[in-house]
Amino acid sequence: MPLEIPPADTPAIVLVEPQLAENIGMTARAMANFGLSDLRLVNPKNGWPKKGVREAASGATHVLDAARIYASLPEAIADLGLVLATTARSRGQMKRVLAPEAAMAELAARPAGQRAGILFGRERVGLDNDEVSLADAIVTFPVSPDFPSLNLAQAVLLVGYEWRRASGRAAIPFSGEMLSPPAPKAALLSLFDYVEGLLDEAAFYPPGKREGIARNMRDMFHRMAMTEQDVRTLRGALRAIAARGDSGAGPGPDEAAG
Amino acid sequence: MPLEIPPADTPAIVLVEPQLAENIGMTARAMANFGLSDLRLVNPKNGWPKKGVREAASGATHVLDAARIYASLPEAIADLGLVLATTARSRGQMKRVLAPEAAMAELAARPAGQRAGILFGRERVGLDNDEVSLADAIVTFPVSPDFPSLNLAQAVLLVGYEWRRASGRAAIPFSGEMLSPPAPKAALLSLFDYVEGLLDEAAFYPPGKREGIARNMRDMFHRMAMTEQDVRTLRGALRAIAARGDSGAGPGPDEAAG
Repeated sequence: MPLEIPPADTPAIVLVEPQLAENIGMTARAMANFGLSDLRLVNPKNGWPKKGVREAASGATHVLDAARIYASLPEAIADLGLVLATTARSRGQMKRVLAPEAAMAELAARPAGQRAGILFGRERVGLDNDEVSLADAIVTFPVSPDFPSLNLAQAVLLVGYEWRRASGRAAIPFSGEMLSPPAPKAALLSLFDYVEGLLDEAAFYPPGKREGIARNMRDMFHRMAMTEQDVRTLRGALRAIAARGDSGAGPGPDEAAG
Repeated sequence: MPLEIPPADTPAIVLVEPQLAENIGMTARAMANFGLSDLRLVNPKNGWPKKGVREAASGATHVLDAARIYASLPEAIADLGLVLATTARSRGQMKRVLAPEAAMAELAARPAGQRAGILFGRERVGLDNDEVSLADAIVTFPVSPDFPSLNLAQAVLLVGYEWRRASGRAAIPFSGEMLSPPAPKAALLSLFDYVEGLLDEAAFYPPGKREGIARNMRDMFHRMAMTEQDVRTLRGALRAIAARGDSGAGPGPDEAAG
């Protein structure tokens, strides 16, 4: 699978003593979703590889296949210059505490050539204080205080998402080139004239109320934020209805102006 | 469990024909992480409730217990005023396509009292075109084009995260009040004086190099962005080392200045 970003520029995801195959697989998938590929596992509980991990990765097996296993956290981060530790709550350490967005902005702005990594702790108990002390700063998540327990792969996903945004690669993959462009005002005004002409022909407006009703309807059309295609479609629909003659009863003016 | 936000103000999460218990449970957990509580399931495949769903929710059972089941999507969104549809790729529909951040900003700015909801499609095939056409706008995710397949609960998580940020409730739960405040410059300068005095006593500086070396060291200390506590700790550590006498060999000046 071609990598769109040089792997050396993407942060490593370091899972410390992860236990569940499902979480590791989902982590690989979340990494692939946002273009990360450097997965490091420190002393995975109950051995490696784990049964079911490939299924949970749902196709992101290139990340799993390239994962490296380490016996200790210091070995896993030896080549990294900038290390962030994710924690669920304050650890009382004298470190800066960053939200994911700020943390990834800092990571994206690091010196060229400096490798970076983000530490994630065990499913139940997270990172211990000695592990956190190895990091340059702490990343935490703006979760509800009523239910702060974030799944491991979900935490990785948020970091990957914010990394991709911070690194300027978060443009929506389809930017609307398949959509019709917004309608120019001339098309809208022409549509208004057409609609109001039809309503005049239909004797729709009560005496003295034409101006107010027409203004309300123009506002309604404006709120539709129509594309050129929308205008064509609407105009065609109105034409079709008009050509239909008077066989159906339209809405009364009060309802239309309400 | 107390709800911190009036449920009417939080968007409904609408899953259309979800299949896997694990995804529905993880969705409930992700919702609880970000303070969402209105879960709606349209025609869940293979019935409801599903075996294993409570385990996957990992404690977010209040969301599952309050989930409502609908036979059709129009019924599920009947009370909503603003509906967004999540899609993985362009559907060629004449709708605005928004990134999660922009979508949730729009949702947070909607008129008071208007209920909102976000549609998520089936695990494999997403929403069909008729379902997307029920929405006011499309939300898509800035995923890597190499691996765009986002898990259902992961997509819900990103929307919940951005909703919480857009609604102004994303302050980091602990804002650093347990941390010592940043050191005032006076404390830093006093520390510099102390360190440089120690180094003078130790005859550390080569002739003519004191000024340059001291400046480099001050820069190093500045980059530490120390808190008051950091300064006290460092000062105490230096004092302890100084009191230790000359029994250990310190680094040479070239190394310290490098």
